[in-house]
Amino acid sequence: MTLHVYVTLVTTDSYVPGALVLAHRLRDLGTNKHLACLVTPNNVSSQAKTWLSQCFHDVISVDTIKNESTTAMTNLTLLGRPDLIETLTKLHVFRLTQYDKIVFLDADTYPIRLIDDLFERPSFSAAPDIGWPDCFNSGVFVVEPSLTVYSDLIQLASKKGSFDGGDQGLLNTYFDNWPETSAHRLPFTYNTTPSASYSYAPAYVEFRDKISVAHFIGKQKPWHYQRFADGSVYQRDNNKNDHLQLWWDTWDKHFDKMTPAYLLSTTRTI
Amino acid sequence: MTLHVYVTLVTTDSYVPGALVLAHRLRDLGTNKHLACLVTPNNVSSQAKTWLSQCFHDVISVDTIKNESTTAMTNLTLLGRPDLIETLTKLHVFRLTQYDKIVFLDADTYPIRLIDDLFERPSFSAAPDIGWPDCFNSGVFVVEPSLTVYSDLIQLASKKGSFDGGDQGLLNTYFDNWPETSAHRLPFTYNTTPSASYSYAPAYVEFRDKISVAHFIGKQKPWHYQRFADGSVYQRDNNKNDHLQLWWDTWDKHFDKMTPAYLLSTTRTI
Ligand SMILES: O=c1ccn([C@@H]2O[C@H](COP(=O)(O)OP(=O)(O)O)[C@@H](O)[C@H]2O)c(=O)[nH]1
Ligand SMILES: O=c1ccn([C@@H]2O[C@H](COP(=O)(O)OP(=O)(O)O)[C@@H](O)[C@H]2O)c(=O)[nH]1
Ligand SMILES: [Mn+2]
Ligand SMILES: [Mn+2]
Repeated sequence: MTLHVYVTLVTTDSYVPGALVLAHRLRDLGTNKHLACLVTPNNVSSQAKTWLSQCFHDVISVDTIKNESTTAMTNLTLLGRPDLIETLTKLHVFRLTQYDKIVFLDADTYPIRLIDDLFERPSFSAAPDIGWPDCFNSGVFVVEPSLTVYSDLIQLASKKGSFDGGDQGLLNTYFDNWPETSAHRLPFTYNTTPSASYSYAPAYVEFRDKISVAHFIGKQKPWHYQRFADGSVYQRDNNKNDHLQLWWDTWDKHFDKMTPAYLLSTTRTI
Repeated sequence: MTLHVYVTLVTTDSYVPGALVLAHRLRDLGTNKHLACLVTPNNVSSQAKTWLSQCFHDVISVDTIKNESTTAMTNLTLLGRPDLIETLTKLHVFRLTQYDKIVFLDADTYPIRLIDDLFERPSFSAAPDIGWPDCFNSGVFVVEPSLTVYSDLIQLASKKGSFDGGDQGLLNTYFDNWPETSAHRLPFTYNTTPSASYSYAPAYVEFRDKISVAHFIGKQKPWHYQRFADGSVYQRDNNKNDHLQLWWDTWDKHFDKMTPAYLLSTTRTI
């Protein structure tokens, strides 16, 4: 039997709310696939791991892969995200050969509909990045793990480095023929970044019903937002993002009125 | 002999500077291809046509194709570009069956290097749009003219309308399998919108040397910028765009110290 697994990554407690909502949402949508979460125990509390192990079949401890070269820091600063110094840890996904096929999802993604069809896509598949659309975004990808590819990637990281300092730059350099092979190109609807709603509003309106996965890129994650007493999300900017409310609806469904911060400071179980 | 032609469009005098620089630049880069400009004589002055006919082999008068349906206006307002009401005029390109193959370039594009290789691409080819990367941007495309396709497009426009009110929405609805056919997908470097320099800065730095065509999308066109006495462009924002200066270098090379506005108010010839 081939083992199909959804995998996400948590390298800091601050992303635990994202991972929990992701797992619950995948199940709410009806998937029977295996769910796994990679964690780096040095930065993730045991309390967080307890919560995660109640939602995921497998919680897998991995070492942090840091990219502390000065070029990496420079490139991440250019990206405005020095906090992403540890995202090379994501490369561990390629080592999970106990699974046959993986759909990787960032902890800040939120599936709108059942996405099990992603497992039918060839390895390596990903969707275009809105910043430079000949690159793919590494927040959602389909892969068959391979130790060879893993060691090639690690070698590439130390030899050439990553042009953006993170996993996305490295993976795009490695899979550099991605833009020319349409079989490996997921529709943008499998990794829709909310900025599309104002960068090309009419297209967003035209295709919004086809969105399968929302991806809350950037520093402000759904669980950072304030909410009003009635549960509605307080969005300061004019470009309201409906997906934010959906994220919180899933949160409320499974965690009641518990706040994400409270969840991690308590020893209560679900 | 197959006739390969670069075609652009001028529906208002205000875009004449763009078309002139485009034609000169293509020639400066060494192309021997034919150059053609579509103009709508109702809105383009005869003075403007005189200038254009000194740069282009063919200046072709066409009727304005307006999209005055209320949905078109609504959609263009959503896009923040009610001024684009006449861009369906671009569809005339499909009628130019006197040419075998066309590389269409918006008047606000600027080739960085010789792009004659575009004529080897199949019809219809275009590059991804940064706003919704499963749509192509219609500022640069490769096409073999066809009266059938032209009438299909006109019919689609009147029956279904354009989701963004302009030619780009319509063309994307018509060529809706574009994202899945990589042969028809031009690299983003053939239609690079300057916003890429800040939306994903490290990718811009990584791939900037590969840029073939810069496309100055948005309301602020190169010829709208003020310049300092030494000829350098005054850019208010922090994200300086090097391509702007290149555009002006070509202007200066062919029009000396004449300002774009002056050019159109005089009867002098080049
Ligand atoms: O402090 C961090 C930063 C990142 N991540 C993980 O790495 C992914 C990529 O980072 P992020 O989503 O913040 O990058 P973006 O999508 O905003 O570029 C996250 O979704 C998490 O899975 C994490 O666990 N802790
Ligand atoms: O008032 C106008 C508007 C548009 N155009 C032509 O239509 C193209 C598309 O418009 P624009 O480039 O302004 O759209 P954008 O690329 O900013 O979306 C222009 O490049 C010109 O070729 C024109 O001649 N006059
Ligand atoms: Mn993310
Ligand atoms: Mn344009």
